[in-house]
This record gives sequence, C-alpha cells and structure tokens, in this order.
Amino acid sequence: MAQKNRSIELTQVTQWEDGKVARVEDYLAAEEPLEMRAGRYSLGVTLRTPGDDEELVAGFLFTEGIISRREDLVALRMPGDNSPERNLVRVTLDPSVRLAENSAARRFSAGSACGVCGKASITQLRRRGLRRPEAATLFDPEMLCKLPPRLRAAQDVFGRTGGLHAAALFGPTGELLVLREDIGRHNAVDKAIGWALLGGRLPLSDHVLLVSGRGGFEIVQKSITAGIPLLASVSAPSSLAVQLARELGLTLVGFLRGQRFVIYAGEERIAVSPPALAGAS
Amino acid sequence: MAQKNRSIELTQVTQWEDGKVARVEDYLAAEEPLEMRAGRYSLGVTLRTPGDDEELVAGFLFTEGIISRREDLVALRMPGDNSPERNLVRVTLDPSVRLAENSAARRFSAGSACGVCGKASITQLRRRGLRRPEAATLFDPEMLCKLPPRLRAAQDVFGRTGGLHAAALFGPTGELLVLREDIGRHNAVDKAIGWALLGGRLPLSDHVLLVSGRGGFEIVQKSITAGIPLLASVSAPSSLAVQLARELGLTLVGFLRGQRFVIYAGEERIAVSPPALAGAS
Repeated sequence: MAQKNRSIELTQVTQWEDGKVARVEDYLAAEEPLEMRAGRYSLGVTLRTPGDDEELVAGFLFTEGIISRREDLVALRMPGDNSPERNLVRVTLDPSVRLAENSAARRFSAGSACGVCGKASITQLRRRGLRRPEAATLFDPEMLCKLPPRLRAAQDVFGRTGGLHAAALFGPTGELLVLREDIGRHNAVDKAIGWALLGGRLPLSDHVLLVSGRGGFEIVQKSITAGIPLLASVSAPSSLAVQLARELGLTLVGFLRGQRFVIYAGEERIAVSPPALAGAS
Repeated sequence: MAQKNRSIELTQVTQWEDGKVARVEDYLAAEEPLEMRAGRYSLGVTLRTPGDDEELVAGFLFTEGIISRREDLVALRMPGDNSPERNLVRVTLDPSVRLAENSAARRFSAGSACGVCGKASITQLRRRGLRRPEAATLFDPEMLCKLPPRLRAAQDVFGRTGGLHAAALFGPTGELLVLREDIGRHNAVDKAIGWALLGGRLPLSDHVLLVSGRGGFEIVQKSITAGIPLLASVSAPSSLAVQLARELGLTLVGFLRGQRFVIYAGEERIAVSPPALAGAS
C-alpha cells in the first residue's frame, strides 16, 4: 500500500456494471511532462510515466541521434522527487555535440522545394550513419514464441493500471535482460535502450527487442540506432516501419502470439525452413 | 482488390505457425509524414495514415490552439496523390492568427525558473481559454455500452490491417456521426474533430467521443477544445488526463467494455443512481 512509487497514482472512481453503481479505488498510470535541457537549449519535452528518468533521457538523446556514444553525455542532473524542478533534467553534453541538426521535426521536415515523404525520411537516417545491425545468431522461432509470456509475467505495474506500454530486451537465447514501462510506446523503448547505453552494453548485437504496442517507423529507427538485429511486437507494423526495416536490414516480426508470428523483413536471421513449395511463389 | 486506397498497402510476408512456413500477402496500415506549412513557417509534422488529410490538418490546428475558429482557416492547399509534394499541406491563415505562442513543446516547456509539471500544463490550457463543455443531456449508461460495438462494426480498414486507432463521434442518443482512423491515436481524434470543424458543427455539445486507445492528457485537451462533454475509451486513462478532466469539467469514462465502465470524472452527466451506501464514503 506504499504510495512512494511515482509510476502509479491511486484515485476514487465510480464503477457502473449492469446498472449497479459503486465507488471504488483505482490505480492510474502516472503521466507527467519531462523537459530535457542543455544549458538554455531545450532538447525536447515528452509526456512520460515518472521512473527510470535517467535511462529515458539517455535513451532519447541517443536514439534521436543527438548523442552518438555514451561519452557524449558528460552529466545528467536529476532533481529529487520532491523538488519543484522534478520534471526538468539538466544535461551536460560533450562540447563536440552539435545541437542544431537533430530533431524529429527536422528529420521529417521538407526542404524548400521537395515534398516530405517516407523515402526522404529514410535518406535522412542513412545520412546519420545508421547501419545494418549485426548478429552472429540465427534466432530460434520456438524461442521467440516464449518471449511475450515472459514479458507479461514481468509487467507488474501493468497488472495494476492496464495503461502502460512495455519494452523488453532479451539475450540471444531468450533470457530477459531488462523490462521498462511507460505510458508512451517510444518512452518505454528509450528507457530500455538508455539502460543499455548507461551500462556500456551497446551495440545490442544478437539481442531481441520486444514491444507490447505497434512497431512503427520511430521504433524501428530506435532499434537500428542501438544495433538491435530483431524487433518483435505482438501487433502490426506500419508500412513505413517495414520499408525502413527492409532498407536498413532489421529483422521485423509482428503478431507474435501463441505459436505464430509474421516476418515482415530480414527473415534470413530466423531459423525457418524455406517456404513450402505449395505457397505463393 | 483495387489499390487506390492510400490508407493501406499490400506486401509479401513470411508467416510461421507451429513450424510451418508460408509466403503470404498481408495488408499494412500506411504511415507517412505530413508537414503543415503557413508561408515559410512550419506548423508541425506528424506521422499519419494518408486519407482525410484536410480534416487532420484542420483538426490539428484547432485542437492545438493555433486557430480558434473555422474562419481562421482561409485556405488549405492539398496536393494531389500523385504530386511529389503530396505530404506537404500549405495553409493560409487569417492575418489575426499569431503563430509564435502555440505549440505542444511550448505548452510543456518550463519557464526559466520553475520546473515543468502537470499543473503548469493545465494552467497554460486555462490561459488559452478552455472552458467546461456544455451538455443539456444526461447520458444513458445503456446507450454508452452500445457504442464500442458500433465503432468496431464501422472499422472496415481495421479488419484488414489490425494496426489502426479509431475515433468516433456519436450524437446524444448514440447515433454514429463520423468514424476516423489513423496509425496515431491523436491523428484519429484530430480527423474526427476536423470533420466537425469543417462542417460547421462545433462546439460538439451533447456529443460523445469514443477512442479505441487510451485516454491521455492530449486527447482530453483536444476533446475539451471541441466542446465535447463526454470522452470514452475502452482502455485506461492516465493520471494527468483524469486531473485535467476533473479541473475543466469533462466527463471521462474508461474501460467501456460489455456491460461495464468506470467514470473517472464528471459523473453528474451520466444517469446513474447514487452510489450504494455500502460503498466507500
């Protein structure tokens, strides 16, 4: 019953069921803005679930291409939970880091003449130096099917609020390394990758990232930035996510449920027998 | 089998099921960046599912507080589907519209001294003039329970890709007025509200907005901006969403599934009998 956990909040609600009304207590997933600043320069603001804020900031700066290695992050000043500045993180970056060129808005923003499009966004990422992730492992399909139950078992906060997305990193044989949760899908991924960055574990060759939500363009981009060869989700990817995964060589798995999944890109990394001759050619 | 619909794309994938492998065709929800520009000023970029772009832009500009009425939008120039600029929308705004003060980043950005927090974000919205939505109707709980099946029945694209969020507006007695879908939760809401704005239907007093995803802070903010008195979702709201709904007088319903729902804020608008005396006081 301790309420020190800033990730959840308790509140009074009214429950209606088949005409019966009751006042009950309910847990809510916490959502608060977090601003990241380097000197007077605002690096970005995200609505996030408080908790693992250092990892979130480190992961965000890295996967958005603002920093390219751990050493670029000289200091991270996190105010205490009771500080009036508890949602303001002050970051000291290595003087070699150039701030102007990196932002999601810029990545998708059209030049003066051409129109913005998915292809231009992918070109921008290539220019940032994103490369095909490496993997010595051939991933076992049976191992992949075991990951969603392992993720769910580890999601203790989810059980209480039903409102959090999860991102988990697994080793080559399916062992859970870290699970992070957030009300925002991207934030959960940034926290998991930030954990790896701060622990000196990058690049994450031979690892699997499993996300509870959808695999969109930005999740694919973040995975490749961290050198993750296999991104899996229990749901569907978007067209642009598939396009980026195919062009940059990420293995993308969707609808990972029970004893079934769909491979959208990079199937050479999964130990499947060649497609049956009966299938479409 | 016509492929003119830009909301979905067909692709070849590999399906694995219990060791059996097959090459199959699969529909993907389309995701492409859209940039909005007024003159040389970029108003924002969003990753969206192509389709209903005029409504998306109108809804975005309105719910983000960039414009405050339909007349502020003098012209919307949408390039054709085959134009190289098909993802670039040029907007002409009324000269009275001031552009500098409105952006999500600004709303959540801390001043020079104080830290950013949920309370400060709510204060910012109050300053924008957001007011308690009006409703002459007392909403019927049985009517609310009928809305999710109506939304699902109308989601034809969802059935093919499994990757789209939906937002639907219903009239006071539960009749479906409009359903919009997008790979982004916020975009689906902006499209539905943009539809209402362009059709001269604002404010949406006595209407219900139902979203397929989670009710977060920004969805609550968008609903109140459009004068919607009741926001319902099939999932959980966040703490900041509940706080904003309570402070600004929106009725917020979550976990609307089968014959059950939870009221997080504004229960006076729902025709429930008073809580049983047996409940917590």
